[in-house]
Amino acid sequence: MPSVGPANIGVVGLAVMGSNLARNLASRIGNTVAIHNRSRGKTDALMSEHPEAGFVPSYDYEEFAASLQKPRTAIIMVKAGAATDSVIDALVDVFEPGDIIVDGGNALFTDTIRREKAVRETGINFVGMGVSGGEEGALLGPSLMPGGSDESWDTLGPILRSIAAIAEGEPCVTHVGHDGAGHFVKMVHNGIEYADMQLIAEAYDLIRRGTGRTPAQIAEVFAEWNEGELESYLIEITAEVLRQVDADTGKALVDVILDQAGAKGTGAWTVQTALNLGVPVSGIAEAVFARSLSSHPEQRAVSGDLPGPAESLSVADPDAFIEDVRLALYASKIVAYSQGFDEIRAGAAEYDWAIDLGAISKIWRGGCIIRAQFLNRIADAYAQTPDLPVLLTAPYFVDALTRSQDAWRRIIATAAGAGIPAPAFSSSLSYYDGLRAKRLPAALIQGQRDFFGAHTYKRIDKPGTFHTLWSGDRTEIEAEDTH
Amino acid sequence: MPSVGPANIGVVGLAVMGSNLARNLASRIGNTVAIHNRSRGKTDALMSEHPEAGFVPSYDYEEFAASLQKPRTAIIMVKAGAATDSVIDALVDVFEPGDIIVDGGNALFTDTIRREKAVRETGINFVGMGVSGGEEGALLGPSLMPGGSDESWDTLGPILRSIAAIAEGEPCVTHVGHDGAGHFVKMVHNGIEYADMQLIAEAYDLIRRGTGRTPAQIAEVFAEWNEGELESYLIEITAEVLRQVDADTGKALVDVILDQAGAKGTGAWTVQTALNLGVPVSGIAEAVFARSLSSHPEQRAVSGDLPGPAESLSVADPDAFIEDVRLALYASKIVAYSQGFDEIRAGAAEYDWAIDLGAISKIWRGGCIIRAQFLNRIADAYAQTPDLPVLLTAPYFVDALTRSQDAWRRIIATAAGAGIPAPAFSSSLSYYDGLRAKRLPAALIQGQRDFFGAHTYKRIDKPGTFHTLWSGDRTEIEAEDTH
Repeated sequence: MPSVGPANIGVVGLAVMGSNLARNLASRIGNTVAIHNRSRGKTDALMSEHPEAGFVPSYDYEEFAASLQKPRTAIIMVKAGAATDSVIDALVDVFEPGDIIVDGGNALFTDTIRREKAVRETGINFVGMGVSGGEEGALLGPSLMPGGSDESWDTLGPILRSIAAIAEGEPCVTHVGHDGAGHFVKMVHNGIEYADMQLIAEAYDLIRRGTGRTPAQIAEVFAEWNEGELESYLIEITAEVLRQVDADTGKALVDVILDQAGAKGTGAWTVQTALNLGVPVSGIAEAVFARSLSSHPEQRAVSGDLPGPAESLSVADPDAFIEDVRLALYASKIVAYSQGFDEIRAGAAEYDWAIDLGAISKIWRGGCIIRAQFLNRIADAYAQTPDLPVLLTAPYFVDALTRSQDAWRRIIATAAGAGIPAPAFSSSLSYYDGLRAKRLPAALIQGQRDFFGAHTYKRIDKPGTFHTLWSGDRTEIEAEDTH
Repeated sequence: MPSVGPANIGVVGLAVMGSNLARNLASRIGNTVAIHNRSRGKTDALMSEHPEAGFVPSYDYEEFAASLQKPRTAIIMVKAGAATDSVIDALVDVFEPGDIIVDGGNALFTDTIRREKAVRETGINFVGMGVSGGEEGALLGPSLMPGGSDESWDTLGPILRSIAAIAEGEPCVTHVGHDGAGHFVKMVHNGIEYADMQLIAEAYDLIRRGTGRTPAQIAEVFAEWNEGELESYLIEITAEVLRQVDADTGKALVDVILDQAGAKGTGAWTVQTALNLGVPVSGIAEAVFARSLSSHPEQRAVSGDLPGPAESLSVADPDAFIEDVRLALYASKIVAYSQGFDEIRAGAAEYDWAIDLGAISKIWRGGCIIRAQFLNRIADAYAQTPDLPVLLTAPYFVDALTRSQDAWRRIIATAAGAGIPAPAFSSSLSYYDGLRAKRLPAALIQGQRDFFGAHTYKRIDKPGTFHTLWSGDRTEIEAEDTH
């Protein structure tokens, strides 16, 4: 008898994300949703506010388990960290082998790997799932990035497909890979989001300082950009934010918002993980650092009088300048996404996940913050060459970069000359020029390292590892490759 | 009776760094050095090669402990990681309360914090010590960065002062702070070293590609720079490396060295730690990423035909261009060091270490890879204002930046236009311009975050935390500061 309780899916943790996801689940035909929260109040409130949902409430974990059909399937939506561990422990106590525990919080993927391993020993399936789209996405259709076992995907797949965002007819969910793969990919999604937002912020700043246009006028620029190849949710909401007038002061809202950007850690995780993997995600790193720089008012206060260029920027042809900024933004965005997908590729290799990069780009087309037409081009690129070593070398992107690189270079030069910070724009161009360089001055660095630390070097003309006797007669010797 | 064995200091681990440090110790009046190595061969070899050192050999840990005066003091020089833990365990077994175990390996400071806590419970002192200067430094005088307790410093101080490098009459060692402080500071030293090397590499590349000068000619440029405000060990050895001719081919050695730069992890640690601390160390990050980019031949192979500028760079006035590069290098270097000291300041605050930043700059003047005159200016800055929030705002550096910023801007513009990657140069300028900006587009990012995630924002004109009802009537409400 497969059925125990009436519900086919449960949600634990009924803060905004959890209750919205529960309501989303309950709204789909065939789903009956068990709900549980540590404190009784949230459960009762959700019951009374949404009688139409037909929730099955429970006030302890035994009751919760009893309210679920087998295999019992529960999605945890609590704060990442110790709270997640404590709910997992409680569910493991009342669940049985074959049941499925899904962590839909923003867990660090290495925690997910650890938890999956521990839970698997009980015979219960553990799935770390990235959920993107914020509160509204959770309610109306998120982008879902589940990891975990194939067995759990058999049960979860149909349920998740029913609640995910739909993009061009396809639900924005795929079985990313085993154990921590889902949370890994969600982490990189957030890292790319950091870069995308920073690039947009730099574009806005350049237009504002270069042309003197008002936020409302720049909102029109972004609205127009949203009709073209930059079309994306972030460009769309940038227009909305810039258009907003503050009721108190009558000024543009963006001019009364304190210019100190907050962060919740996933951007930093993306960079820290990339450093472990040896993947250069410089655009994401610059975006994270730009936020931390902005958030040190005590440092900015003593730096305001540092010398800058004698003259401020005033561009001769504002429309041409804005078009240059658009192209620079597009080119930099291609770099940021290329770096992010590079990190996913490297993570998959390191952790032995069979990640379909094209499928990842497709599930980001709806529900999530970085949703954009652009992601179809990424899917095309991987459809054509699944093992593409660098995303931006796909023909479509090469065409785009060919069209935009002159403008990109002009914008970096202008920003540098005018004293306008453009860290993510500049970093993306440097990465691009580094990638295509026939020779890099890394050879000099290898020479320096051999000089001061006998770190040895390789040669372009023969195999082996070499060391120059710098403090001896400066002849070269073959060295063991141990340094 | 304080004396047990004949030796006042011991060294465990006799690979090159360990045996050189042991020889350095033995060469100083008053020191008798006990030595031990896991395999007997290294001990015997060191004994027979250096009879003049008067080493006291031992072949197990009991013997080693018996050969040392109390408080027994031993420096571990083994590979960081599991080997370190196993030697610590062995020493803890044979040492007594009040004895001192020093880890002179390249440990991650959080490991040192953990080890110090564990060893302290036995009553034995544990000191994590950064050792810089490579093999030659270990032999002739390293820069030493010990952490650990005040008690251990009483015994260790005189011994370490006797073997450290001397800069302007002062030994390059100070008691950095408790537990992991020494390894933390050594880590940041290495991060700064990465940035410094990358900046030099970019300067070389710009001169080479901009002027067509040969490596030997550029060696002369660096040799000349080494007479001025850039005077430093790294500039000095850059000239040596560029001057070196490969015997096999007759070419400049730098042209036969494979241009893939290796790394040993401490640069990445510096960036990862800075991300945890919220400190923007963008110059160091770009340097680490430049090395990882260089080390992906499969990616570079498919990127060589990416479009670049139509024309390659040919500067009209090479001498003026080279002077611009010199100034850009100097300005970028100031940024890199400022970011590094910012990280030390933040680390000291986070981990409650009383670190004297001026003392740190002084102990780096000799023995270590980044040794330079320049460090005296940093010492001056902190002598004048010990709690300086941003190093580069000290008057001396403001003067230097005032002199160099126009050249710096020209060089970034030139590099961008010519397709020459200059990630660390560019990143440093972006950081500088970000720091001095009166308003940053971080305000737009806060608006975006509030739009898609209800992350709230603060205002410039009143206290509190606010949220605009973006999907409602777009009025602003006061929000709880919980997001």
